[in-house]
Amino acid sequence: MDGAIRIFVTGGTFDKEYNEITGDLYFKDSHVPKVLQMGRARLDVHIRTLMMVDSRSMSEEDRTTIAKNCRAASEERIIITHGTDTIVETARLLAAEIRDKTVVLTGAMIPYTFGSSDGLFNLGSALAFVQAMPHGVYVAMNGRAFDWDNVRKNRKTGEFEELES
Amino acid sequence: MDGAIRIFVTGGTFDKEYNEITGDLYFKDSHVPKVLQMGRARLDVHIRTLMMVDSRSMSEEDRTTIAKNCRAASEERIIITHGTDTIVETARLLAAEIRDKTVVLTGAMIPYTFGSSDGLFNLGSALAFVQAMPHGVYVAMNGRAFDWDNVRKNRKTGEFEELES
Amino acid sequence: MDGAIRIFVTGGTFDKEYNEITGDLYFKDSHVPKVLQMGRARLDVHIRTLMMVDSRSMSEEDRTTIAKNCRAASEERIIITHGTDTIVETARLLAAEIRDKTVVLTGAMIPYTFGSSDGLFNLGSALAFVQAMPHGVYVAMNGRAFDWDNVRKNRKTGEFEELES
Amino acid sequence: MDGAIRIFVTGGTFDKEYNEITGDLYFKDSHVPKVLQMGRARLDVHIRTLMMVDSRSMSEEDRTTIAKNCRAASEERIIITHGTDTIVETARLLAAEIRDKTVVLTGAMIPYTFGSSDGLFNLGSALAFVQAMPHGVYVAMNGRAFDWDNVRKNRKTGEFEELES
Repeated sequence: MDGAIRIFVTGGTFDKEYNEITGDLYFKDSHVPKVLQMGRARLDVHIRTLMMVDSRSMSEEDRTTIAKNCRAASEERIIITHGTDTIVETARLLAAEIRDKTVVLTGAMIPYTFGSSDGLFNLGSALAFVQAMPHGVYVAMNGRAFDWDNVRKNRKTGEFEELES
Repeated sequence: MDGAIRIFVTGGTFDKEYNEITGDLYFKDSHVPKVLQMGRARLDVHIRTLMMVDSRSMSEEDRTTIAKNCRAASEERIIITHGTDTIVETARLLAAEIRDKTVVLTGAMIPYTFGSSDGLFNLGSALAFVQAMPHGVYVAMNGRAFDWDNVRKNRKTGEFEELES
Repeated sequence: MDGAIRIFVTGGTFDKEYNEITGDLYFKDSHVPKVLQMGRARLDVHIRTLMMVDSRSMSEEDRTTIAKNCRAASEERIIITHGTDTIVETARLLAAEIRDKTVVLTGAMIPYTFGSSDGLFNLGSALAFVQAMPHGVYVAMNGRAFDWDNVRKNRKTGEFEELES
Repeated sequence: MDGAIRIFVTGGTFDKEYNEITGDLYFKDSHVPKVLQMGRARLDVHIRTLMMVDSRSMSEEDRTTIAKNCRAASEERIIITHGTDTIVETARLLAAEIRDKTVVLTGAMIPYTFGSSDGLFNLGSALAFVQAMPHGVYVAMNGRAFDWDNVRKNRKTGEFEELES
């Protein structure tokens, strides 16, 4: 379980802020560093923001950028924070391209700036899974690490579940 | 990674509350169920409170109770929430007695009732580690899973570190 | 400073929630009772929800409903929680109709469900102003009580200010 | 309601922090500036920390220091943040010495560093009362402004009440 961990930030609900002038949700800076500090994480973590987008408006080009960065990363363990709506699509693309690394995609249902977000919990679990799981691509949500090819988001409940369940 | 997870609650900073009449910190009910709910955990988890004590005043009898419950548990995966001051001592006792299970001890430096607790992060990581790690006894703090025989709490920084580091 | 206080809830940012399925902000129940509890308010307060709307979409009929309820209320001291965008318009209408009561309109720039809302502070100040101020209609924001005919919301800063300042 | 407001910080539960190394509550810096910022207060406020003590260990000398500072202050409106246990004693001393100013003492039952503190609400109400009330000395707690000579803290409930109630 040694070695540095790379975190790629891509936006998603996790990093949404409330704009008090317009009343809209928007992106500013990522809250990932703050979450690591609050969790008192003592890991060799390198964070890089690739984009700040709602995953419903993530383009194929965006996904290609993520894949390219995962391939180029010197770290063997990679976390991607991602909007939950298309997180499975990105996982699928990565699985086709990345074979010799452990990649864990995670997100949040509630923005971190809300006091009661699941983001702190999810990033804690993603950091653990990325250290402990063998090479492969996983989606870490709801306390679990799903294999990339056996997971979907249930649009009604907002929870992730296995395909054959 | 299948099968139910048992969580044994023993108290510690994680579950401390502020008594607004006396100004002291004390224990009431565990916050573990609330944390699982906030994290939207979708796991088969069974929670049982064994005791509610500050780990500095945990007796040998208390530790024996914990070990007995771990042995008797039908679940193969066990999390123990524990005060951080003597968490390593309890881990050592458990390692001597439990061989065919994955046991992860975790705690918090800041009570959950404080908005900025590390408890949500730590429980998220403990749940991931207990699913992904082979049989053995581990202390999950600071985003890492330490082997029971290679960890100590640094009293000055409040962080956990390896012995030979 | 005796006598009961009436609180009319009309919605606004104060009471907005985050819908984790759609990612939109919406209204459910009012958080006013929770705020009074957190503030340990020991006042004879009667809360009634008149509507749950964004004040940008508040109709003249809505405002007439608010005025009618203020006139009909048996309490001499009335607080109205209101969206900040048209709070001054409603205050103007009320000033034309209510002469023998103290009416304080207040709102929030950040929803209460965000941990760092100004709603708790604003409701604390509105409750104080409604007890201490003479009959009249006031807008309580930014720690101040503005006369209804000498206040506007600065759309750029989100702050309330006097007209002649 | 014009003119600057002076805030004297003296400590109390309001400003207590959790020491994660020792597990004790202690004082560091005051949270009053942060509360004013969160409440988006737009007032001419001057803050000065006189001491940082638990009001149960406040000495007569401490109280004399507070009174001296109130007399010397150029502002006519003064707020004092204070531990709740002896807040009434300090109010009594101030009432004997300060006649031409509005002095409002306030505190909190739960430290501000806990997410669910009453401090934000109380400071909001204290700022309103200090602007709206005539000269005199008041204790602002539980959403009310009590006259200094008609208030006591109920040790069982933690709430403030009138003497003859």
